[in-house]
Amino acid sequence: MSCDFLTLAQPGVQKLSPYVPGKPVDELARELDLDPTKIVKLASNENPLGPSPKALEAIRAELAELTRYPDGNGFELKRKLAERCGVAPTQVTLGNGSNDILELVARAYLAPGLNAVFSEHAFAVYPIATQAVGAQGKVVPAKDWGHDLDAMLAAIDDDTRVVFVANPNNPTGTWFGAQVLADFLARVPEHVLVVLDEAYIEYAEGDELPDGLEYLSRHANLLVSRTFSKAYGLAALRVGYGISSAEIADVLNRVRQPFNVNSLALAAACAALDDATYLAESRRLNDAGMAQLEEGFRKLGLDWIPSKGNFIAVNMGRDAAPLYQALLREGVIVRPVGGYGMPTYLRVSIGLPEENQRFLDALSKVLDRA
Amino acid sequence: MSCDFLTLAQPGVQKLSPYVPGKPVDELARELDLDPTKIVKLASNENPLGPSPKALEAIRAELAELTRYPDGNGFELKRKLAERCGVAPTQVTLGNGSNDILELVARAYLAPGLNAVFSEHAFAVYPIATQAVGAQGKVVPAKDWGHDLDAMLAAIDDDTRVVFVANPNNPTGTWFGAQVLADFLARVPEHVLVVLDEAYIEYAEGDELPDGLEYLSRHANLLVSRTFSKAYGLAALRVGYGISSAEIADVLNRVRQPFNVNSLALAAACAALDDATYLAESRRLNDAGMAQLEEGFRKLGLDWIPSKGNFIAVNMGRDAAPLYQALLREGVIVRPVGGYGMPTYLRVSIGLPEENQRFLDALSKVLDRA
Repeated sequence: MSCDFLTLAQPGVQKLSPYVPGKPVDELARELDLDPTKIVKLASNENPLGPSPKALEAIRAELAELTRYPDGNGFELKRKLAERCGVAPTQVTLGNGSNDILELVARAYLAPGLNAVFSEHAFAVYPIATQAVGAQGKVVPAKDWGHDLDAMLAAIDDDTRVVFVANPNNPTGTWFGAQVLADFLARVPEHVLVVLDEAYIEYAEGDELPDGLEYLSRHANLLVSRTFSKAYGLAALRVGYGISSAEIADVLNRVRQPFNVNSLALAAACAALDDATYLAESRRLNDAGMAQLEEGFRKLGLDWIPSKGNFIAVNMGRDAAPLYQALLREGVIVRPVGGYGMPTYLRVSIGLPEENQRFLDALSKVLDRA
Repeated sequence: MSCDFLTLAQPGVQKLSPYVPGKPVDELARELDLDPTKIVKLASNENPLGPSPKALEAIRAELAELTRYPDGNGFELKRKLAERCGVAPTQVTLGNGSNDILELVARAYLAPGLNAVFSEHAFAVYPIATQAVGAQGKVVPAKDWGHDLDAMLAAIDDDTRVVFVANPNNPTGTWFGAQVLADFLARVPEHVLVVLDEAYIEYAEGDELPDGLEYLSRHANLLVSRTFSKAYGLAALRVGYGISSAEIADVLNRVRQPFNVNSLALAAACAALDDATYLAESRRLNDAGMAQLEEGFRKLGLDWIPSKGNFIAVNMGRDAAPLYQALLREGVIVRPVGGYGMPTYLRVSIGLPEENQRFLDALSKVLDRA
């Protein structure tokens, strides 16, 4: 018997390449000896508005209970989410970010010999979660950077248990409309779980994009996953949720760690749900920043992929990796997406007006030099 | 193909019974219409001292960054832990509580056809994490409520990949000494990963209990798991860690969710590590409370299992479930441990002096009535 603990690991795990996050500000500051306060990070689709005052207040009120375990059932947050989403609390699964929801699905429904279908240029956690449990990921070529839902349907076979679709999609920002979603759901076999990832939906809802929750009552095989990390501005705290049939939620809750969501996240998420002003301002800021970046790209003669997220993928028309590095040296962190099959693109999160301008100025500078 | 999403779940998952946490104060208050401020909870081995001021300060300083993702590499906390533990940062795995560490081990090294060995009356997460990945749990009968390490060695077979041992053990509080650990580690086959769960070690270190970290250099198959939820008083935030060879840590870090530990937890844990005063006071309070409860049990004519944790298992000499319920009606939450094969016992966490007294008074009252 080998005692090499890499060889002893499960085959799927051995082949895993970990997720590569956006470079943290402190890390860049350490590496290039830069002043961290001067660095602009537009790399992780974070909300540039800063924290919701209501969320901060809820966190401060909860600090006295720091030594206590969280409510493992997340009673209050589930109640509020259920009310907001028009479902029963038994249909809610809380996650340590929506990443946790995606992983719970994989662990409950995938295994060696089974597969999950997802699109090219989609979120890196779909293949990672699939491979971690030894299942096969079936990657379907994208159409115009977005999901080719017909091809995804055709890729579903007898061993498919899960199909991941994102609306809008990260990192491309592409989306599909209500009729397209309805047609797709009608054609997915009933035993295949559809994970509709709506991490960015609050930036786009009503604006050509359907609300996935409206399809739950007709499709027992649908799970809608959402997050508090983006438009609600709570990325630091890790809280997301899945809405599905009570049966699927029951299964996911069995796999879930008993205290997967921390107490401050539970409290802050409840408060954030009530902060309509923050949500509206987040969206307004995003719309304005998106227009600002598009205008900047136009002036620089660059193409981009129209996006409904809080980010935009812009085409450098050449290998983008050296430009990413050059931008780092200017103190601007964006996201290279070569790992997503988009080697000539950079994904830029929408920031504050001055952050967007800093990025555009730095981009202009490094393009001139290149 | 069935479209019943329970039947479609993996076989191990279908059979999972979720972990039953200690009853939260708010839940009891709702159920029995009690004033939550009057309820005493001694059910989850939480630190009764209240939060560390240094941890609170670190959290407040981090609140401005609430919209940012955590540092997925946990650079600063790993650095501090490595320094403290006398290892390299590459030997550290951070977890969303030490529960996460236990689960990462199961997901990396267990699968259908393989097994994990653990003791009777041990932490419920060992069987849950094992079963969730479809592996077999081999439960070894306890000796005097503690681990029978010889029998555990004998239970290891060709399909064993992990053995879970806890020192001290929860919920019994039992422990073993340095020589016993050394002999055990020398005899475990090199390809079997030993998870030494030291969640309560800070309450007992040096007091007949060995420091598991001292065995790492001689045993490449050892992982020591620890937590900030107990003596460090950060249960609400969810942060724990594993220390192992860099090879094992690399594997666990591949399976780990990229942002499994939230930003406030990372900051608070760094501060807690520097708060020696808080740690010393936690231990002093625990020693005093343990003596207080033992004295109370003596007066009530009750037996208990001597404990090195921050809890104690006391024998009611009859089915303890009705007494647990009667204590709830008195506003005192303790932990029934029938699910741990200890139907006549209650596990009581050490509280503040007045909380311990409230419990002893309520226990005396319900015993008189029974």
